[in-house]
Amino acid sequence: MKKNRNRGRQGKPLARPVRLKTAKLLDSRIKTIGQPPGSLIPIGRQQIERTQITLIAFDESQVVTRQFDDLDEYLSFKEKYRVVWVDICGLHDPLLIEQVGQVFGIDTLTLEDVLHTGQRAKVEDFEQYLYIVLQMLEYSQAEGGISREQLSIVIGKDYVVTFQEKPGDMFGYVRQRIANAGSKVRKLGADYLAYTLIDAVVDHYLTILEEVENTIDQLESALLENYSRETFESIYSLKRELIILRKSVWPLREAIGCVTRDDIQVIGDSVDPYYRDIYDHIILVIDTVEVFRDIVTGMQETYLASVNNRMNEVMKFLTMIATIFMPLSFIAGLYGMNFHYMPELGWRWGYYAVLGVMFLIFGGMVLFYRSRKWY
Amino acid sequence: MKKNRNRGRQGKPLARPVRLKTAKLLDSRIKTIGQPPGSLIPIGRQQIERTQITLIAFDESQVVTRQFDDLDEYLSFKEKYRVVWVDICGLHDPLLIEQVGQVFGIDTLTLEDVLHTGQRAKVEDFEQYLYIVLQMLEYSQAEGGISREQLSIVIGKDYVVTFQEKPGDMFGYVRQRIANAGSKVRKLGADYLAYTLIDAVVDHYLTILEEVENTIDQLESALLENYSRETFESIYSLKRELIILRKSVWPLREAIGCVTRDDIQVIGDSVDPYYRDIYDHIILVIDTVEVFRDIVTGMQETYLASVNNRMNEVMKFLTMIATIFMPLSFIAGLYGMNFHYMPELGWRWGYYAVLGVMFLIFGGMVLFYRSRKWY
Amino acid sequence: MKKNRNRGRQGKPLARPVRLKTAKLLDSRIKTIGQPPGSLIPIGRQQIERTQITLIAFDESQVVTRQFDDLDEYLSFKEKYRVVWVDICGLHDPLLIEQVGQVFGIDTLTLEDVLHTGQRAKVEDFEQYLYIVLQMLEYSQAEGGISREQLSIVIGKDYVVTFQEKPGDMFGYVRQRIANAGSKVRKLGADYLAYTLIDAVVDHYLTILEEVENTIDQLESALLENYSRETFESIYSLKRELIILRKSVWPLREAIGCVTRDDIQVIGDSVDPYYRDIYDHIILVIDTVEVFRDIVTGMQETYLASVNNRMNEVMKFLTMIATIFMPLSFIAGLYGMNFHYMPELGWRWGYYAVLGVMFLIFGGMVLFYRSRKWY
Amino acid sequence: MKKNRNRGRQGKPLARPVRLKTAKLLDSRIKTIGQPPGSLIPIGRQQIERTQITLIAFDESQVVTRQFDDLDEYLSFKEKYRVVWVDICGLHDPLLIEQVGQVFGIDTLTLEDVLHTGQRAKVEDFEQYLYIVLQMLEYSQAEGGISREQLSIVIGKDYVVTFQEKPGDMFGYVRQRIANAGSKVRKLGADYLAYTLIDAVVDHYLTILEEVENTIDQLESALLENYSRETFESIYSLKRELIILRKSVWPLREAIGCVTRDDIQVIGDSVDPYYRDIYDHIILVIDTVEVFRDIVTGMQETYLASVNNRMNEVMKFLTMIATIFMPLSFIAGLYGMNFHYMPELGWRWGYYAVLGVMFLIFGGMVLFYRSRKWY
Amino acid sequence: MKKNRNRGRQGKPLARPVRLKTAKLLDSRIKTIGQPPGSLIPIGRQQIERTQITLIAFDESQVVTRQFDDLDEYLSFKEKYRVVWVDICGLHDPLLIEQVGQVFGIDTLTLEDVLHTGQRAKVEDFEQYLYIVLQMLEYSQAEGGISREQLSIVIGKDYVVTFQEKPGDMFGYVRQRIANAGSKVRKLGADYLAYTLIDAVVDHYLTILEEVENTIDQLESALLENYSRETFESIYSLKRELIILRKSVWPLREAIGCVTRDDIQVIGDSVDPYYRDIYDHIILVIDTVEVFRDIVTGMQETYLASVNNRMNEVMKFLTMIATIFMPLSFIAGLYGMNFHYMPELGWRWGYYAVLGVMFLIFGGMVLFYRSRKWY
Repeated sequence: MKKNRNRGRQGKPLARPVRLKTAKLLDSRIKTIGQPPGSLIPIGRQQIERTQITLIAFDESQVVTRQFDDLDEYLSFKEKYRVVWVDICGLHDPLLIEQVGQVFGIDTLTLEDVLHTGQRAKVEDFEQYLYIVLQMLEYSQAEGGISREQLSIVIGKDYVVTFQEKPGDMFGYVRQRIANAGSKVRKLGADYLAYTLIDAVVDHYLTILEEVENTIDQLESALLENYSRETFESIYSLKRELIILRKSVWPLREAIGCVTRDDIQVIGDSVDPYYRDIYDHIILVIDTVEVFRDIVTGMQETYLASVNNRMNEVMKFLTMIATIFMPLSFIAGLYGMNFHYMPELGWRWGYYAVLGVMFLIFGGMVLFYRSRKWY
Repeated sequence: MKKNRNRGRQGKPLARPVRLKTAKLLDSRIKTIGQPPGSLIPIGRQQIERTQITLIAFDESQVVTRQFDDLDEYLSFKEKYRVVWVDICGLHDPLLIEQVGQVFGIDTLTLEDVLHTGQRAKVEDFEQYLYIVLQMLEYSQAEGGISREQLSIVIGKDYVVTFQEKPGDMFGYVRQRIANAGSKVRKLGADYLAYTLIDAVVDHYLTILEEVENTIDQLESALLENYSRETFESIYSLKRELIILRKSVWPLREAIGCVTRDDIQVIGDSVDPYYRDIYDHIILVIDTVEVFRDIVTGMQETYLASVNNRMNEVMKFLTMIATIFMPLSFIAGLYGMNFHYMPELGWRWGYYAVLGVMFLIFGGMVLFYRSRKWY
Repeated sequence: MKKNRNRGRQGKPLARPVRLKTAKLLDSRIKTIGQPPGSLIPIGRQQIERTQITLIAFDESQVVTRQFDDLDEYLSFKEKYRVVWVDICGLHDPLLIEQVGQVFGIDTLTLEDVLHTGQRAKVEDFEQYLYIVLQMLEYSQAEGGISREQLSIVIGKDYVVTFQEKPGDMFGYVRQRIANAGSKVRKLGADYLAYTLIDAVVDHYLTILEEVENTIDQLESALLENYSRETFESIYSLKRELIILRKSVWPLREAIGCVTRDDIQVIGDSVDPYYRDIYDHIILVIDTVEVFRDIVTGMQETYLASVNNRMNEVMKFLTMIATIFMPLSFIAGLYGMNFHYMPELGWRWGYYAVLGVMFLIFGGMVLFYRSRKWY
Repeated sequence: MKKNRNRGRQGKPLARPVRLKTAKLLDSRIKTIGQPPGSLIPIGRQQIERTQITLIAFDESQVVTRQFDDLDEYLSFKEKYRVVWVDICGLHDPLLIEQVGQVFGIDTLTLEDVLHTGQRAKVEDFEQYLYIVLQMLEYSQAEGGISREQLSIVIGKDYVVTFQEKPGDMFGYVRQRIANAGSKVRKLGADYLAYTLIDAVVDHYLTILEEVENTIDQLESALLENYSRETFESIYSLKRELIILRKSVWPLREAIGCVTRDDIQVIGDSVDPYYRDIYDHIILVIDTVEVFRDIVTGMQETYLASVNNRMNEVMKFLTMIATIFMPLSFIAGLYGMNFHYMPELGWRWGYYAVLGVMFLIFGGMVLFYRSRKWY
Repeated sequence: MKKNRNRGRQGKPLARPVRLKTAKLLDSRIKTIGQPPGSLIPIGRQQIERTQITLIAFDESQVVTRQFDDLDEYLSFKEKYRVVWVDICGLHDPLLIEQVGQVFGIDTLTLEDVLHTGQRAKVEDFEQYLYIVLQMLEYSQAEGGISREQLSIVIGKDYVVTFQEKPGDMFGYVRQRIANAGSKVRKLGADYLAYTLIDAVVDHYLTILEEVENTIDQLESALLENYSRETFESIYSLKRELIILRKSVWPLREAIGCVTRDDIQVIGDSVDPYYRDIYDHIILVIDTVEVFRDIVTGMQETYLASVNNRMNEVMKFLTMIATIFMPLSFIAGLYGMNFHYMPELGWRWGYYAVLGVMFLIFGGMVLFYRSRKWY
């Protein structure tokens, strides 16, 4: 039994390793307790050694990408290009973040939200800029689950600043499109660039859902053939991933809904349909998460019913064997007694008579089980 | 036991084969990741070799049906007939779809929605045309479940364009009615034609619900007579079908509700009552799905209670047999011991005394069970 | 056991027979598929051989009741009496229904709703008349459950037309009141007459709820004394009845709420308080259904807990007997071995020593069980 | 076991007797079926032999209390005192109720509501007076549960009429305060008097909740120490009481909310804060009921988990004993066979060898259980 | 087994002691029954011997802290400093509370709310001052759970009065910040001071959630390795803490939402963003509580599934041993019978033949189990 567990010999091995733990839902705020509002204290785990600042400036005719440490260079780019995208990876250096705030005129409360990772998705309109915070989720086989990272986007009239906790490849496609001279993103402004970034994040939610659907399919097959404890634990961790996904997406729906409904200065009317498109995607994600939750709950019930059924079968088998052999053994024991005066023992056909009686009892029991449809 | 399982001898066979898998809920979007919005990339599985374009043009006096490849012919029909219905089956050829978009003046974002199958039902008003996307569901015994197909309808002033993933016979009745010279559809415009198409889809939801109700009836009988594992799996797959049905219909309610409430240019006021009729049907479907979900949940509980009850019975039987025969066997074993000095063994009536004691124990046990009402 | 089941000897017999099946929730719409809207196709089961038309015309001073086939007679009554009530029983003759529609000026879509039984309750204001459709429920011991019938009411300025599927005695009291010269219904108009009819239907919901409460009381007693499988099945069918009741009443609430809120032409202001009274009753029904659902769910849980407890008791008894007698039987078996050299067998007090050891083991086990509080 | 059940020896006895039945939720309306609206037919059980009418008239300087039968006396009091409170106990005499209605100018529909006990709490503004109906709940150890009584309050400009089903002491404190010359109730009007009455009823809800919390505490202790069937039944009846409490309080919230929001003539603005205070209390009751429901549900789950755990322990013990002794008994049986040619039987150390083997098996089994951590 | 339970040898010991009881949810209102509104009767448990009054007065340049008994001193501070914070610990002295009310002009109804601990969080605007009541929660290892304390805050134009049940260190950080000359709280008014106080309370909610998350992590590990009854009881008490947390935070959301939305006189516009920040935190707390509830529910299900699985394993082992040895023992018993005429007994190879048969049965059983995949 122990062996089976380790070798998983009874069914095909599940693609994902069993794990009950996923990323922490809360980043510890203990450091911030007692601090006045607007104190810039990073609360997330430092995930990168040195903050990386990447600047991509472009207009319809030209693009330039630069990695640097000093934000003062920014000003020169600002004048020469229509849109400037500054991407900051690493949130452990409050001084740098404060400097960024000064260069772009970002409110201290916004900067505080940037550093306090683990925020609910929200949108705040500061007229000069729009602040959007949302959760990037990525399914990583290696870490065995969904990893969560906060993305803050500050959208100004002609610039976009993004704050990430660690570098990642989620925006690779966006950079490719910017590099492509004829693409729409080159023709339109900062609001459209921000749309492409958010769209990339939301598309990843869908990718995770596809991953989830695959796992559901595997587990449903496993449920039919074999139901080990691992199956149940996989269902449990699936459910937990759905809970996290839901927690990230629900508030985003409201936030992006605000962007499409309200009249926000930095978002041009021509870009509104694109944000509505994101909104549709978010609704689709939410719907699908709900459907998957229902399905996963159904799988749990099926699992438990299977275990019950299996136990039932086992018990019926035990009962059948025991109720047949106990009376027979009793009779055998009876004639194994050593009383001196047991007339049957001396009978010529005594032994055969007892065998016959035993056979009758055996047959009667079998008929009884048949009639009860227990077997 | 194995045999019973295979032959299903214990109860009447269920009409539908057991299956836990149904159609995928999500069409993979991996191909679209990193693409700019408006990129026409089909994401559904190609289900037909060559896109079929069918044109039906009619007015009160004449009808013409034509299958062709070249959309340019369309223009000649447009002028001669009051209403033209172009039905496109097959969504794997983005070039063709783009061409359709140009001929009818359909926005690229709409065309993208057409190709991205697996959309939530929605309605979008583009003034020049109204775009409705919804899910066609069909219960197919062969495929063992509900199959899902996206239907996009573009309603213009004098034309209707429908996009389907594969050819089907859902609109056969509509074609018959168009063929019938005196029918209402011949007298009224494109908005009424679109109504008849949507109505056909919604009517199919009701057909599926009737199928579901029949299965519920069968399963309820099965629950009373016999409760194999198949029963539970059927309940599970039923529940899953209801989840899918619900997912398709909920957003449609909102969408059609919009059509009836809002003042949409391409939908004439005289046709509004018909859309309200569809709305009523959708509400009826939603209500019924909820009721069926409640009933199916109740069946699951009944199933589990039955399994528990059965196990209870089996255990009581085992307990009765074991508790009666264990003491008896012990006594028999006692007098089977080979001690040299066991005075009872030499008694004249020892054997009969022991038999009497055994009978008293047997009777006592039976009375005990009676008093506990265990049997 | 089988006997107990049949004779129900263990507890008092339940008043209602066990049944899992109730009336169909959906009337088949297969006949209507592909038909244009406004096609008058009856979809319910024909429940009466010939449509009965009953006319009751009255004003403050006079009443006349007439059964007839030809609606033309109606016109003569219309002029002579203030209020005319035409009651049509039987919905299988579309021609007749169409004729009724022409005489009273009822829209084809309304007539279609009349024939398509199984509608959600709703109210539609056509200015010339008000169309109310609702479900009449009746608890019938004979049919073993709730039977459902659609009632359509068309309220005009000076007439009320009711459409029922089969004749029933639900409106007997209304007819009595009309017959009573001094009654309010004789003094007021068609709107008040319609109120009395709807009130009779809603009162029946309350009657069914009383029936349900009685069953709940019986089942709660049964739960305490005895919990057979029949108990669980009764709970299940109770739950199902509550689901159906709820399905019928929920939409009615919205519908009657509309009548009280909106300014409907054919409903005079002086009659509004009566409709509000119906509204209060409906809310009471809904509240009570919810409470009963909670109670029934609690009963299910109690049932399962009882079964578990019972199994627990049985298992503890088996364990006690088995764990006491197995070691004893082993010792007996040990000294039943036939080895030639077993010194204990020759001891003078060997037998009594073994008996003593057995008694000590027995006593030790009993003390063990006491200390674990298992018994 | 039976003894334990009766004597409850295993844990401390629970304070409340086990009972599954509580007061009826519905008063039978069968008597009212077919009656025109406004028919004064009492439907509750007659709970008092003779209707008691108590009049308390007061102004700032004087109070008078009088019990009488004839309402005509009322008029003389009305003129002399600022506020008159007429308290009517007993609702079985429709004639008297009708007379009350005439004296105070109360609408027949209101009187009907007074007699139809079992109403949802509601407020109706008739301009001349305000009609409030609510449920008085009282926890009574004697009756073993919550008893329900309908209280109707008619608030006029200078009078309050209350209708109760039976006399009780819920308003004792109010009478004391009226007797107290300096109290607020003597200075203010009928609206404030009505507030004190409603407040007394709502305070009783809180008292019941405290009772419930005490029972929860007792049951939680019981869950830890001992979990008999009585525990579960107490949890069930607790849940049922919470359901009834909730049913009474929910509609009251809406009703009192109306009083505070709407501009009601007979309720002075200066009294509004007091009604808001009641509103806060009702919300607190609702919140607490919900919290208690959650806790009680958690207790049920804990109970079931405990039963499962206990069964698990019992089964493990049985399994351990059985799996150890069955092989040993088999070996003993083997050498109890009477074959003539069994060489081992004649061996000098055969008996001791077998004892050794048995000991090895025993030790192996114990090690096996240790390694599986079953014990 | 008993030992294991006490020593917890099977898994790592859980950090928190098992306890099912937490703080009372309701403070007894029995004392207040029958009292007129505005009666100042403290209902909470007296938790401190003598009421402590602490005054902190400050403006940008100076701070003074004073502990005193006489409130008359207050007036002298009021004139000299911009903001005065009076902190009152201990609510058992109604006379003192009344005096406070007179000095600050606080309404009697407000003072009543201050004394009636166990209130829902709410905000009441009295124009002269704003009254905020909320629950301070603190997780205390010592008391083994969450302790609850009511905090009332009265915010005037230039003063803040806080009422606590007992002294605590929740506001230590606030006092530090006031002591810090350059801090924001010194520059801004009473409204900002109140914000820092509420923020400290809400931050504590987050701290408790972190505590809860740690416990969840521990329990999830415990679920994988070992599932004792303690695990389940820890889950239950965790669930109960979440229920209490939720009850405290939900109404606070609405209350603080009011402050941010409504135009409240004593709260300056410049301070509004800070209150919005609190609002965001509250939403985050609510979201996280919901997520944790879902996770804890999932853990309960996993626990029960594990217990079931374990029982299943145990039963399969018992069944295997019993079904193998029962037939074997029967055969042994058969040849232990003492019939005189049993030809097999005399056979030369009889014994070995029987041993062979037994071995065949043993092998057959093992194969049978393999084929059923039971083992």
